[in-house]
Amino acid sequence: MKNQAYRMALLYDFYGEMLTDRQKEFYDLYYNEDLSLTEIAENYHMSRQGVRDAIVRAEAVLTELEDKTGLIRRFQERQKELRQLQELASAAQAANADPVVGDYLRRIQGLCEQLKQE
Amino acid sequence: MKNQAYRMALLYDFYGEMLTDRQKEFYDLYYNEDLSLTEIAENYHMSRQGVRDAIVRAEAVLTELEDKTGLIRRFQERQKELRQLQELASAAQAANADPVVGDYLRRIQGLCEQLKQE
Repeated sequence: MKNQAYRMALLYDFYGEMLTDRQKEFYDLYYNEDLSLTEIAENYHMSRQGVRDAIVRAEAVLTELEDKTGLIRRFQERQKELRQLQELASAAQAANADPVVGDYLRRIQGLCEQLKQE
Repeated sequence: MKNQAYRMALLYDFYGEMLTDRQKEFYDLYYNEDLSLTEIAENYHMSRQGVRDAIVRAEAVLTELEDKTGLIRRFQERQKELRQLQELASAAQAANADPVVGDYLRRIQGLCEQLKQE
């Protein structure tokens, strides 16, 4: 479970709202707050296994959503292309001597940066 | 239902894989093949109301996915920014006289076009 923390954070970011409130709580405590299964179980007066099952189910829901929609895969491809776009704009900027073109290139770079954050 | 055809096509494109096979079939016949509820009902030996319920349920699933994840809204914002990026690259191209910069700008325009298709 925790060895997949980065992958899970991405999944949660894209699809977290599809989980139940309880699943979100456990997920957050386990992955973001880094509590152990035993600590969560004690806080909620449940068995460790019960907490574990809830988190495993939540992971299954998130993983299925990605398997079926591929939206994270598409997001990552897009990020790669946006980085290429920025590199091209930087190279163009380095080769350019015209102030008008330079201004357009700066705006292109700014918009690429904005797109990468979305 | 059918007055929302464009919206539904987008929802289906993003989240269609989350529907059951039956829901996908009805959805496809109704929205893409443009069959009437009565025609679908006859083909499947069901009541018109049964077909209608299945399609309404499918729409509710798709709509809930978008309400919770906002991925289509983000997609549409991105498309708008990619169009702005293309306009900036075209304006830069029009103002530019340097062949090296012109080549970079053409590659930027090509990559923008590719990103818009994704």
